[in-house]
Amino acid sequence: MKVNEIKAGVVGIGFIGVAHVEAIRRLGAEVVGVVGSSPERARRKAEVAGLPPVYDSVESLAADPQIDVIHITSPNYAHAEQVRTVLDAGKHVVCEKPLALNSEDTADLVALAMESGLINAVCFNIRFYPANHQAMSLVAAGAIGEPRFITGSYHQDWLLWETDWNWRLQPEEAGELRAVADIGSHWLDLTSFISGRRIVEVMADLHTLVPVRRHPAGPVETFAAVDESGELIEEEMTSDDAAGILLRYEGGARGAVTISQVSAGQKNSVRYEIAGSESAIRWLSTEPEDLFVGHRGRANEISSRDPALFAPEAARLIAYPGGHVEGFPDTFRALFSQVYADVAEGKTGEPPTYPTFADGHDVMLVTDAIAESHREERWVSVKRE
Amino acid sequence: MKVNEIKAGVVGIGFIGVAHVEAIRRLGAEVVGVVGSSPERARRKAEVAGLPPVYDSVESLAADPQIDVIHITSPNYAHAEQVRTVLDAGKHVVCEKPLALNSEDTADLVALAMESGLINAVCFNIRFYPANHQAMSLVAAGAIGEPRFITGSYHQDWLLWETDWNWRLQPEEAGELRAVADIGSHWLDLTSFISGRRIVEVMADLHTLVPVRRHPAGPVETFAAVDESGELIEEEMTSDDAAGILLRYEGGARGAVTISQVSAGQKNSVRYEIAGSESAIRWLSTEPEDLFVGHRGRANEISSRDPALFAPEAARLIAYPGGHVEGFPDTFRALFSQVYADVAEGKTGEPPTYPTFADGHDVMLVTDAIAESHREERWVSVKRE
Amino acid sequence: MKVNEIKAGVVGIGFIGVAHVEAIRRLGAEVVGVVGSSPERARRKAEVAGLPPVYDSVESLAADPQIDVIHITSPNYAHAEQVRTVLDAGKHVVCEKPLALNSEDTADLVALAMESGLINAVCFNIRFYPANHQAMSLVAAGAIGEPRFITGSYHQDWLLWETDWNWRLQPEEAGELRAVADIGSHWLDLTSFISGRRIVEVMADLHTLVPVRRHPAGPVETFAAVDESGELIEEEMTSDDAAGILLRYEGGARGAVTISQVSAGQKNSVRYEIAGSESAIRWLSTEPEDLFVGHRGRANEISSRDPALFAPEAARLIAYPGGHVEGFPDTFRALFSQVYADVAEGKTGEPPTYPTFADGHDVMLVTDAIAESHREERWVSVKRE
Amino acid sequence: MKVNEIKAGVVGIGFIGVAHVEAIRRLGAEVVGVVGSSPERARRKAEVAGLPPVYDSVESLAADPQIDVIHITSPNYAHAEQVRTVLDAGKHVVCEKPLALNSEDTADLVALAMESGLINAVCFNIRFYPANHQAMSLVAAGAIGEPRFITGSYHQDWLLWETDWNWRLQPEEAGELRAVADIGSHWLDLTSFISGRRIVEVMADLHTLVPVRRHPAGPVETFAAVDESGELIEEEMTSDDAAGILLRYEGGARGAVTISQVSAGQKNSVRYEIAGSESAIRWLSTEPEDLFVGHRGRANEISSRDPALFAPEAARLIAYPGGHVEGFPDTFRALFSQVYADVAEGKTGEPPTYPTFADGHDVMLVTDAIAESHREERWVSVKRE
Repeated sequence: MKVNEIKAGVVGIGFIGVAHVEAIRRLGAEVVGVVGSSPERARRKAEVAGLPPVYDSVESLAADPQIDVIHITSPNYAHAEQVRTVLDAGKHVVCEKPLALNSEDTADLVALAMESGLINAVCFNIRFYPANHQAMSLVAAGAIGEPRFITGSYHQDWLLWETDWNWRLQPEEAGELRAVADIGSHWLDLTSFISGRRIVEVMADLHTLVPVRRHPAGPVETFAAVDESGELIEEEMTSDDAAGILLRYEGGARGAVTISQVSAGQKNSVRYEIAGSESAIRWLSTEPEDLFVGHRGRANEISSRDPALFAPEAARLIAYPGGHVEGFPDTFRALFSQVYADVAEGKTGEPPTYPTFADGHDVMLVTDAIAESHREERWVSVKRE
Repeated sequence: MKVNEIKAGVVGIGFIGVAHVEAIRRLGAEVVGVVGSSPERARRKAEVAGLPPVYDSVESLAADPQIDVIHITSPNYAHAEQVRTVLDAGKHVVCEKPLALNSEDTADLVALAMESGLINAVCFNIRFYPANHQAMSLVAAGAIGEPRFITGSYHQDWLLWETDWNWRLQPEEAGELRAVADIGSHWLDLTSFISGRRIVEVMADLHTLVPVRRHPAGPVETFAAVDESGELIEEEMTSDDAAGILLRYEGGARGAVTISQVSAGQKNSVRYEIAGSESAIRWLSTEPEDLFVGHRGRANEISSRDPALFAPEAARLIAYPGGHVEGFPDTFRALFSQVYADVAEGKTGEPPTYPTFADGHDVMLVTDAIAESHREERWVSVKRE
Repeated sequence: MKVNEIKAGVVGIGFIGVAHVEAIRRLGAEVVGVVGSSPERARRKAEVAGLPPVYDSVESLAADPQIDVIHITSPNYAHAEQVRTVLDAGKHVVCEKPLALNSEDTADLVALAMESGLINAVCFNIRFYPANHQAMSLVAAGAIGEPRFITGSYHQDWLLWETDWNWRLQPEEAGELRAVADIGSHWLDLTSFISGRRIVEVMADLHTLVPVRRHPAGPVETFAAVDESGELIEEEMTSDDAAGILLRYEGGARGAVTISQVSAGQKNSVRYEIAGSESAIRWLSTEPEDLFVGHRGRANEISSRDPALFAPEAARLIAYPGGHVEGFPDTFRALFSQVYADVAEGKTGEPPTYPTFADGHDVMLVTDAIAESHREERWVSVKRE
Repeated sequence: MKVNEIKAGVVGIGFIGVAHVEAIRRLGAEVVGVVGSSPERARRKAEVAGLPPVYDSVESLAADPQIDVIHITSPNYAHAEQVRTVLDAGKHVVCEKPLALNSEDTADLVALAMESGLINAVCFNIRFYPANHQAMSLVAAGAIGEPRFITGSYHQDWLLWETDWNWRLQPEEAGELRAVADIGSHWLDLTSFISGRRIVEVMADLHTLVPVRRHPAGPVETFAAVDESGELIEEEMTSDDAAGILLRYEGGARGAVTISQVSAGQKNSVRYEIAGSESAIRWLSTEPEDLFVGHRGRANEISSRDPALFAPEAARLIAYPGGHVEGFPDTFRALFSQVYADVAEGKTGEPPTYPTFADGHDVMLVTDAIAESHREERWVSVKRE
């Protein structure tokens, strides 16, 4: 099969679901159908947003014989069951993070996917800014020496006001952890991916800086403004909107990260620095083209996304010449280009060139340890058996 | 018709042609076919890049009754004739800049398009970074006072080396002007669009800083590396690879711009500052999300792309939440979203929300004046009669 | 007395000692004498650097009746005793941080200074970038709402290589803590100063990422290159060259900071973000003129150092017009301008406009808690009695 | 003589005069006296600002036998006569730019200074950001290849409002040119210094974007706010507050610059790019520590001020370690350190390591050509004999 013969389905049509649809189309593959939280709501949105036909349920999508691969972008609580439905139907699956709400489920999904032999991916899309693959390539080549100190942050502001509301604030839909699971998980995955080192021990302090929220009765889409004209329900918050976490990586590297969804003016800002024994690399998601390479004994470098200058594993993700900024939507295009190459082949590459369920499970083990550390106010080891 | 029922064809499958194909697909419209410089070359590329089926010629594409709109992204010299073919066939047309090689042709195309009643657009895509529409909106609302001093640059480096080669270096394919026509035209259009003022007088100094080039016999794609292993042909250059231009805008505003395709390290960098009697706005294409708003008597502002914070005419171009960087590919999506809304309606909005042939013609008149000014070493008025 | 009639002495003529001498001279006051680690070494340096006459000892400087104020910039271990000598002699005193090696000494010095009635200051100079006073002023005025999340880092690279060497690496000269005491203390003081909230609880993980160093037998000045030609002594390191610290501030604010002296390419980079319930402020020492003010519902702001735009308590520190960058040396000028105004008056203002021994002691209590937290791997309260 | 035995006098105690006093003091030299526009006004300011004793006149300062060197920082119209007075008295002289109001005077002063054998310097202080000396050193070493395209800007905003006022707006005090003479001259000198190429031909368009101003009867200091409470005099402006200039340098390099004192939000922003046949260098005065070095075939570099990493001619200007930002005041310290080394020696080094009257004269010839070009609306050659 060729990539532009692949037929896909997408579950969830919030902001991220639409990003999936767009990226699949850019590859020349067809999105045959989508599924929303309710068929009526989905049809209205599909009409406005130029989306493919709406299917009534994940089951009906999974049952369509022409479909090769299904993307899961629904609220977190639904992921595990929907993934099982898709795997049962023998379709390849691309799942948004987190893969599930707890590590029992993610472990089970890893096992199921392995048994099935189907292609499975988790959308840690931030890896797919080409600069981040370049960073990974530099570390792997020894360009920074031994990674030693891994620090940074992931700060947003869309939950700053007490009237900000979304399903992500409800533990029953989003899981026990909120900011850490939602955005922290990206940072944890990203730095492990780039440094080539897993996190083995954590010490966390989770915060609920907006302790009470007032929200409308109905659903509010991620990043959308709340209509405050109706009656608002006051609710005590239990999950984290910010966190500070100390980290110990394999091989002796140490680190720390702060997570926040209440930092005014930071719309969506990921930052990391991986300092090695020779050099250091730094990246900031709001200037995603540039990888900063810090040196002690010579001028620092800005290594900007450029197919002519990047390593092959980064260059193959690049669609546009240097200086023609690729942004957030392009990370999905790049990620799916790797997944769909495997879908076209019918089997997972060895090793896979994208994050799989195994990666989704590993981050879940880390966030489990974070939750435990916070509750017990002590260092906790990541339990990888 | 709905946007996702529109059928399109694309002429030209270089880097920009592929950008068009992707952007059309993102809107949910279908690209029915593409045309390359030769059918064989096009088929090879189409296979690699997941492109739609290859048609043998513009004529055959234009003759396909299912096609509603055709995009022209071929080398500049071919634009005028291909646009005529498309208009003759009664299809809507989206043409890359420059619209043609000279102002006789562009005037003629404006007239033809008007007669035809067909939708016509020219791809000044840089306007469609949402920050630039926000800038336009701010100026229109009087937020900077009266625009007075309009300055900036458009610098690249892809023609730095004497072995860099591309059809754009051959006046017979690209026109008399090179850097000014190719990238300068974007800057001239952009600042007129934002300031709401046309350029009325110019004083130009054009440079050929790489006076001799060595190139392979065959074609080299824009931004692609040259294979230097074969025999190279030495050729004297006549067109501009850099320029300095003094500008006078309507209403008394003054300005200046520098253009270069030989500035090492600047992959593709547009910069402008429009200083008004109250405030000033600044933008840089390598940080495209941010519009800098400079004030005298209070803190400067960074107004970042955000659908919740931008004016309606900018917000409607935005597909992703603030902080999730939209880049170069997204400008085509945004531009075509406006054109295709008109295609779906079957008629041009009043006023159009995208650059039309009239804008393409106006910039051609300005670049004509630039060429004349350079030859005669004096100020020249733009001849709009 | 007027400021330009004040006579000063400076103990220590390393890089910071010279900074003191320069800053005192800029105020028009006279530096009557300096003291170095040895009179011979001091005389050589004084000749090269245009320094004032060399005195043989702190005692002889303190005994000079014409001297009004003495600055202590010697290695950390010497501070406490030298400060006592100066206070005993009835001179005002300006001491580099840390005020002493432990909190018993700092408590004692606070008491001694209070008894003496003499002016006492500790050089937390980073407060004296005018943007940081502006930040403090904004928080005090409620411009960011309630401070909630205080994060950042202080990273350098001058101890990256195992051959980097300085007295600061020797616990007997520098104290038990190294990076945390040396540069972390600045960050801890700075964020308390700006937020108006003291740190009450800490959880720290300290690192010795360069576990063995090789150094020459003799002394090496801070930031100076090591002569590697001679024989090098191999030594195991015990103090921290990096750290991650979770923080709890008064009033419920939470935070975290990373400290490093081994982050390649970061010569001297302080960063903080103080996120409040309404807005957030951010600052970066390598762009010291600009205070970033982040907002949720309107454009972010860059509030740049400008006497016409800053609050009075920040504006009074400014010597040059906006846009004429003031840097690191100017922070000493600004700090001493406040101290010397009090010296000229003969008594400490109420409240003092600069950090006093009490501030130096308070930071020592925080770093004590950090050391204890690291040893015991648990949260530790700052013991303020 | 040693540097800290040098005795200086300073004429003019506006913002720049105070900068001179401070910088001289930092070197350990003594400022024996200052002269203001009137002795009374000077005495008031001297008291506030901690300045040295006030002399009644330039003549009395020049007559003081203990004084070695006199700095001229008075309004432009007074420079020529005051310099003559100083040279007649046999004192070395440091003069602010412009050296005089016209090129007859500057030629005469060059001749006088040469006859006298006295040390003469003109304060093109922007050269003395160490990054700019590093840039010069890189070009001289061939690191960017042949300089080809030299572009940039110098924009301020302190004359934006029609009530902004200063002697610099009065041609009889400041000369025929205003923005070009005042700040443009810095840029012209700087790029010639760095590129090693003089400007040989110019094409200028000068603007008076604020055509009418209203001002108080008395004097207003540069960068100071105007008291608008009294009666204001309305006056038509004749001199330039903005300009666009096309440039031709020796050896075939081409360039362009824009100058403005009416660009809101730009407090004082110098920017240049010197693009060579191999690489390019870029600098921005608001981030003065960093020299950007752009490459085509490898990552771009940020070469930051660091005594360990800069070339010797740049490193010798540096007083503080890397990362400890040196700013505007430090350029005077650096410049005077070179001049005073010669004063201590009693003769000008060969070649001088600072700009001399010859450089001041050369820039005057360029600005003369600019004025002529503007009047005649044509390219004008710089008349160097």
